[in-house]
Amino acid sequence: MEVTKSNFEEVFPDIVKEIENASFLCIDGEFTGLNNGHIVNAFDTPAESYLKIRAGSMDFLFIQFGLSIFTQDDKTGRYKNKTYVFYLFPRPINRLAPDIRFLCQTSSIDFLVSNNFDFNKLFREGIPYLNSNDESQLADAMEVKRSYRANQVKDSSTQTIPVPKQFKPTIDNAMKKIDQVVSGKESEVKIDKCSGFVRKLIYQAFEEKYKNVDGIILKSEGGGMFCKKGVEDLMEEKDAKEIAAAVGFSKVIREISAKGKLVVGHNMLLDICHLVQRFLDPLPADYHEFKEMIHTLFPKIVDTKLICAEETIKQNINGSTLEMLMDTISKPPFHLPEIDGEEGYSYVLSDVKYHNAGYDAFITGTVFLSLIRALDPDNKTSSLKNCKPIEKYMNKLFLMKAPDTCIDLVNPDPEPSRDHVFHISFPKHWNANNIQKLFSPFGSTQLFWLSDTTAWVSLYQRDESHKVIKALENSSKLPSGVTVLSYQRFIREKGAAISPRPNKRKHGNENASEEGKRKKSSPNDMRSNRNTRKISPIPEEANSCDLEVKKLEDSANIPGSEFDIDQSWG
Amino acid sequence: MEVTKSNFEEVFPDIVKEIENASFLCIDGEFTGLNNGHIVNAFDTPAESYLKIRAGSMDFLFIQFGLSIFTQDDKTGRYKNKTYVFYLFPRPINRLAPDIRFLCQTSSIDFLVSNNFDFNKLFREGIPYLNSNDESQLADAMEVKRSYRANQVKDSSTQTIPVPKQFKPTIDNAMKKIDQVVSGKESEVKIDKCSGFVRKLIYQAFEEKYKNVDGIILKSEGGGMFCKKGVEDLMEEKDAKEIAAAVGFSKVIREISAKGKLVVGHNMLLDICHLVQRFLDPLPADYHEFKEMIHTLFPKIVDTKLICAEETIKQNINGSTLEMLMDTISKPPFHLPEIDGEEGYSYVLSDVKYHNAGYDAFITGTVFLSLIRALDPDNKTSSLKNCKPIEKYMNKLFLMKAPDTCIDLVNPDPEPSRDHVFHISFPKHWNANNIQKLFSPFGSTQLFWLSDTTAWVSLYQRDESHKVIKALENSSKLPSGVTVLSYQRFIREKGAAISPRPNKRKHGNENASEEGKRKKSSPNDMRSNRNTRKISPIPEEANSCDLEVKKLEDSANIPGSEFDIDQSWG
Repeated sequence: MEVTKSNFEEVFPDIVKEIENASFLCIDGEFTGLNNGHIVNAFDTPAESYLKIRAGSMDFLFIQFGLSIFTQDDKTGRYKNKTYVFYLFPRPINRLAPDIRFLCQTSSIDFLVSNNFDFNKLFREGIPYLNSNDESQLADAMEVKRSYRANQVKDSSTQTIPVPKQFKPTIDNAMKKIDQVVSGKESEVKIDKCSGFVRKLIYQAFEEKYKNVDGIILKSEGGGMFCKKGVEDLMEEKDAKEIAAAVGFSKVIREISAKGKLVVGHNMLLDICHLVQRFLDPLPADYHEFKEMIHTLFPKIVDTKLICAEETIKQNINGSTLEMLMDTISKPPFHLPEIDGEEGYSYVLSDVKYHNAGYDAFITGTVFLSLIRALDPDNKTSSLKNCKPIEKYMNKLFLMKAPDTCIDLVNPDPEPSRDHVFHISFPKHWNANNIQKLFSPFGSTQLFWLSDTTAWVSLYQRDESHKVIKALENSSKLPSGVTVLSYQRFIREKGAAISPRPNKRKHGNENASEEGKRKKSSPNDMRSNRNTRKISPIPEEANSCDLEVKKLEDSANIPGSEFDIDQSWG
Repeated sequence: MEVTKSNFEEVFPDIVKEIENASFLCIDGEFTGLNNGHIVNAFDTPAESYLKIRAGSMDFLFIQFGLSIFTQDDKTGRYKNKTYVFYLFPRPINRLAPDIRFLCQTSSIDFLVSNNFDFNKLFREGIPYLNSNDESQLADAMEVKRSYRANQVKDSSTQTIPVPKQFKPTIDNAMKKIDQVVSGKESEVKIDKCSGFVRKLIYQAFEEKYKNVDGIILKSEGGGMFCKKGVEDLMEEKDAKEIAAAVGFSKVIREISAKGKLVVGHNMLLDICHLVQRFLDPLPADYHEFKEMIHTLFPKIVDTKLICAEETIKQNINGSTLEMLMDTISKPPFHLPEIDGEEGYSYVLSDVKYHNAGYDAFITGTVFLSLIRALDPDNKTSSLKNCKPIEKYMNKLFLMKAPDTCIDLVNPDPEPSRDHVFHISFPKHWNANNIQKLFSPFGSTQLFWLSDTTAWVSLYQRDESHKVIKALENSSKLPSGVTVLSYQRFIREKGAAISPRPNKRKHGNENASEEGKRKKSSPNDMRSNRNTRKISPIPEEANSCDLEVKKLEDSANIPGSEFDIDQSWG
């Protein structure tokens, strides 16, 4: 069901009830962009990945939220589903409210419209929202305003603005209309559009003439004014209503957090970061604080993309985008779960709408139920009660560029070996061939650019590492301007793991990352493995390069590592 | 006429012809926002205003351009009109092209949709563009890519990627389809969606099997692939075509610049800055360089808003928004010009569409013709030939917040007296009342906040200035933490006129500035003149305050100065 500002207040109580009864909730988000130059690298630690997302992705807007609610019938074991898709737009409700500036990424906008995203509906009908910080600031500002006005009303020493000659007819004309309402001849009159100054003069004339008359409302509207009989709401009540309206959609996320139900997403790190930052509280700069915060706000989280990285699952699937997963689970050895979608509230599988947040959330739930059964074949109803295999994935967030680790919200993150990884600095004129040549005695390598003059080099034959250390670290035979350090030593010496390193490549991985979020296998991901295996250039691949095409295309990589890390199931 | 990517190439030759024959061109732009916190102040110099616009407004996107072309018939003296409204969106044409990130301001987006701006059309149908810088970068990158590919093709030492077992059926199936095309049994086949890796394997199998077969095209499309008979364009020609398509709309602005026709706009500084930055070349950091650049690119410019500030015009108009001006010039003493709009290419005045860039450009031309006649009553056909009165306004750009000066593109900017203006620093807890009290011996004042602890104070009675200097500059009797400096001395001592001062107020004038650009009189502009004249608070005004409501609402201002500067005709 689509939820906009027109039906949000009406639908909200139902949503609260549905969340209350839910077995689990699936979520998905759509954004106006993915990153602003802080690109996550394969050998970033989970902490670095988080800090890059916080620095590079949070200025984009959360524009569509999909909430798919799955509730299992205790008797039949069948799941019923209700899915809501919310359009979100933080239109300022008044001049005290923040006038948010947000970023858009051209390729993301293009991707969304090509998937039929309706931006007119978004901007016209989007539900407003405020996080807790902005809410309390707005409340404070409105209180100051009220007390200011109260003081002003008491102040009797006001002077009048003299009416400039050219405005006199306009003011007189307006007052004649207002007289009609005061005298009861008209119930409401409209005054034509005029400048703010003229409106001010009309207010002044009205105040002067009808200071002691109650029950008349004079107000601006669309550049003009209207005057009618009536009594205005008490300011305080009016303000409280306005603030509640401004908080808007944030109530839904506060409700999800308060109920503590299992929240399931597919590659959900970015969604979770946006949910917290936009609707709850600003993300902290400290990684451990972040983990604690997320775990407190959402005590039970499962990321289906992480389940797909599981060896037993991986070998049976072609790719881990939602679309490919749906294809996979529709055939043996998987079982497609039967879900009773409530009419008008759910989707029919045949009505494909990928990249609509509601549909994607629904598909995530469908995939999740199928994966539960795959992990636990005896659990034919995919029940979550006493579902042991799922515990392994609880409160862990998948990392797009580094599927060999993850963000573990409760325990220390896995620390996979980086003994085969080396940091290299080199002169600006070097390209991948130079680096490949330097490392050629140690077998095939894979290259991850960090900047024009730095990169990670990963060995295919991990047991060659000690030879590299011996031959290249501290070697006086290296070409001028070249240094090679083991991963561990680089981290130790540079403190690089502590602060995020913005990726300085001009256009490169951006697209790869984009594609990733879009849950599609990107040809970009393949790009880097050309030279080591030395297959011919292929038209598509050649299109998927970037401005630093020379370096990228020449990149001396082997499939092994890239595949293990990013695409092993794709 | 609406121009999108669908009809742009077709319409472009006509536009070139129309520009060639034009008497003058009117322009207008719509943007995704107006400023990002660098707010222009009333006493900023023109140079400071420019630098603030450059720093605070250029990250927003130019989304709609109105070009209204007016051509006078030499014999009849009547003007004919053709108006084009272009939707603009810099969709990246390939992975080498810049993936632009742009800012949106929530209130601006809200304003545009409430004026029926069609964002779906924009994002789907917008014409792409590149400025000269990006164009040459893209051309370079594509050349590097071509030479890389040429080298790769020569390299015969390629190795094949072994096909993982699970993908074998998919690859075999695809090859069977391709065989159909090679053998001539089918003219074209499609291969189902698959991952980038699988597509790579299919390419590899195809290259292996049909290395020596010409005239077969195998390509990716929408996540799948197609194979058909045919010969691909030469890479160089293909690239040249792609670059021309990417330059897109920029050609129109290059054409306008090349032809050197009179360009007319209404409050056009922001439009001109965006036109140059987005479609021609990056704006320079040096103000004088900027003036030279604009004058070189557009040798004849007239800003109708500046004409409206002329004393003889000002006294006859109610406000200088386009809407109010149209109302004004429809009645004596003005004359509404008769314009022959070409059907399908122009507007009927009754079909009101304010804030559509095409309509606004057309109205600007209508107003311009009427103003010419008002300035030169004998010029009944509003001819530009030998039109002396217009020379006074040639190559000068109106400044929204400081209409007593302007940007003079050819001569030094006017330097109106600031002898009555003082810079005050004060403790954080001070508000407008404190400042007003300090200056009360010198009559009424107007206050312009610069930050929480600094402001400009402008005297209503300018001849009191020397008394302020005597009493407050260098006074040991000032409260602790307070300093007062004359405008001249402040500029001299702080070098403040050289670098722009970002406005640190949190939300305030943003809205005023917004409204200004929207060519509406803003109640905000009136806000600051409340206390000195001491009129009662009025509902609308109370709504137009901001988070620092206490300071703003208490602001000790007189209408005189604010009106002279911002609203004297409104």
